[in-house]
Amino acid sequence: MPVQGLSRRAAWAEGQPISDLMATALANPQLISLAAGFVDQQTLPVGPTHAAIEALVATPERARRALQYGITPGYAPLRERLIEQLELPPGLPAPSVEQVVITAGSNQLLHLVCESLLDPGDIVLCAAPTYLVFLGTLGNLGCRSYGVATDRQGMIPEALVEALERLEHDGELSRVKAIYLVPYFDNPQGVSMPQHRREAVVEIAKRWSRRNHHLHVIEDAAYRLLRYEGDDIPSMWTVDEEHDTVVVAGTFSKTFSPGLRVGWGILPEHLVRPVCNQKGNIDFGSPNFNQFIMAEVLDQGLFMPHVEYLRKAYSRKLECMLAAADREFGPLPGVEWVRPQGGLYVWVTLPEEIETGPSGTLQDVAMEEGVLYVPGQYCFPLEGEPAHANTMRLSFGVPTCENIEKGMAALARAIRRVMDGGA
Amino acid sequence: MPVQGLSRRAAWAEGQPISDLMATALANPQLISLAAGFVDQQTLPVGPTHAAIEALVATPERARRALQYGITPGYAPLRERLIEQLELPPGLPAPSVEQVVITAGSNQLLHLVCESLLDPGDIVLCAAPTYLVFLGTLGNLGCRSYGVATDRQGMIPEALVEALERLEHDGELSRVKAIYLVPYFDNPQGVSMPQHRREAVVEIAKRWSRRNHHLHVIEDAAYRLLRYEGDDIPSMWTVDEEHDTVVVAGTFSKTFSPGLRVGWGILPEHLVRPVCNQKGNIDFGSPNFNQFIMAEVLDQGLFMPHVEYLRKAYSRKLECMLAAADREFGPLPGVEWVRPQGGLYVWVTLPEEIETGPSGTLQDVAMEEGVLYVPGQYCFPLEGEPAHANTMRLSFGVPTCENIEKGMAALARAIRRVMDGGA
Repeated sequence: MPVQGLSRRAAWAEGQPISDLMATALANPQLISLAAGFVDQQTLPVGPTHAAIEALVATPERARRALQYGITPGYAPLRERLIEQLELPPGLPAPSVEQVVITAGSNQLLHLVCESLLDPGDIVLCAAPTYLVFLGTLGNLGCRSYGVATDRQGMIPEALVEALERLEHDGELSRVKAIYLVPYFDNPQGVSMPQHRREAVVEIAKRWSRRNHHLHVIEDAAYRLLRYEGDDIPSMWTVDEEHDTVVVAGTFSKTFSPGLRVGWGILPEHLVRPVCNQKGNIDFGSPNFNQFIMAEVLDQGLFMPHVEYLRKAYSRKLECMLAAADREFGPLPGVEWVRPQGGLYVWVTLPEEIETGPSGTLQDVAMEEGVLYVPGQYCFPLEGEPAHANTMRLSFGVPTCENIEKGMAALARAIRRVMDGGA
Repeated sequence: MPVQGLSRRAAWAEGQPISDLMATALANPQLISLAAGFVDQQTLPVGPTHAAIEALVATPERARRALQYGITPGYAPLRERLIEQLELPPGLPAPSVEQVVITAGSNQLLHLVCESLLDPGDIVLCAAPTYLVFLGTLGNLGCRSYGVATDRQGMIPEALVEALERLEHDGELSRVKAIYLVPYFDNPQGVSMPQHRREAVVEIAKRWSRRNHHLHVIEDAAYRLLRYEGDDIPSMWTVDEEHDTVVVAGTFSKTFSPGLRVGWGILPEHLVRPVCNQKGNIDFGSPNFNQFIMAEVLDQGLFMPHVEYLRKAYSRKLECMLAAADREFGPLPGVEWVRPQGGLYVWVTLPEEIETGPSGTLQDVAMEEGVLYVPGQYCFPLEGEPAHANTMRLSFGVPTCENIEKGMAALARAIRRVMDGGA
């Protein structure tokens, strides 16, 4: 139903459940928030950013170029550097600089790619659960998110084929335009996809593509560098031999600074022009100044040391949260959680009868106990694999270890009260 | 016609004629460009930006906040300051800070407002000619630009009423959602709308609004502060007593730095939520860091002195261009030009038989003579008042006075060659 006098898109953009949660958090600063997916403010790189700016300003002519308009796809020296961020195994052909586009965080890249691929009513297959903000992006476009079952290794390839078969049976296959994945420490489950699953998904996408209907795979690699144990896995770009299927979305928001808002995409050649055309019409290019800063940060070798520092800081917080989970949730029957190797989230599953969302009692009881979390149901696509209402996403990014421990104890008290029916 | 496998929007985004022109300029750096609407690189504020950043970094806790995520509508202290930029006459009620939204330049604000108001096929009434990038924004949305005749005072209110009557007669009135104006030194004509025309346009918008179909007026005030003579005119916000009709789009791109990409909108209350919802889904908020920088620039009193400096610099260049026009174009029969009081553009009208666009010969002859301009036809809406093919937009923003003089002489030679049939 369109809002009176406004566009259909305005109606489609309504009702992000997460905004209510954020408003609650803002209005109740005494609550410990295990909900926000923000990064730890204390870790933000004032020193490296300042050093990069000083270097830039030292050459006024370069500083003036940074303060001038740039070109829509972004500052070429930074785009060159971002190809290195892909960390391709030696010997593999690299994308050209033309295939790299700088955007306002990876969110804008996801938006631009979806604008370029999807018409209203079109479908994107997503892990169930998946990144909740992306579900909002799809909703705003009038598009449909369709959930595919997952396990502790992310999206299940057999479930992906089943979903495609079901959609084909319903005459909707031509509506399916992309598969969206967060294959590194995903938001919200914290799970990663092993190499064989990545290969399987790309193979399925290619097999189900038709001449006029290409099925793209969007790899959201936002958390790739936030690995605290185990070995890196190559980007899905490497398993797309024709380089016509996989889009990689990257960002410095989690690994450096969300306030600089520098994200990017690495695109199959045929998507470069559509994405740049959209971007040119929407914002005429991302801030040149911020791109010069990030290029300088990379050139001066300031980036990876900061990532190392973040890994230590977040790894310690993850340990705090997992230890608190063992201690506080361990004794609670039927409560399970994922032990991620990276990222910013711990995913908790409660006994089936406990609803974590607004139609259950836990959310209010948890607030009484002093803690906020993200109800897992918000992370589930609207169709396909049904939402699991007994789940929650906890984030260890923002709170201190002390607050993580207090928050987890409060949450355990709340769960126990609901279990005991004493809420 | 949709591009194979891509969205309708991808098809709608195709074919910005200006990109070919920009590619020509890049490939031929020896040409003098009177085409680019960029700002003068030598004037860009390295010093003030650096001072603002130093002040920010001096308090690491604030610097960290600048490097963190912000809220979608933007940094509140900056938004407070932008209400002052409206320069409301004393005694008038000011908009609340909630009505101010920070965007990636004013282009993104225009995009978000159009996304919130327009469905594909909907119509925006524009001056003929108008800001060509906005025509691209509308095209990308699958929307229609409809031209209203102008004179040396901008859009003619009587022509606006005629256009509305014509559209009503054709059963298309319900498609008309907004009137877009650049009432200060507009791009491309350099003309400004006097107060009585501004009042007339807002009155017409209100009179033609229906209960479910509100006609908004979008005031693009990008060049307001770049006035070199005469007195400022109040924003159209002041003539919208109910504050339900006028949207103001502002930007620091022309008055400070396009590389920081800080623009904004001042919105009627009912548009705040739709615009913020769209923005939240597209890019999750503009870079916080850049907003902190601009707030600091304003707080330290660094902004208006820079504007004063720009006024002097551009005023001198405008004089160069007008003197060169008198000298070079004066002797050419049937060549006329506007003498603007501000902005970055001089609009030239040639004898009717001389086409400035790709179907005429002038463009190639001018390139042979060593100069680039923007063919005026690119600035005309696709419907309504027909394009005037014998016009051109010249910009004095980027070139030096010396190059302005050389460019104008080259252009005069080219015009003369075409007039003499000797091209």
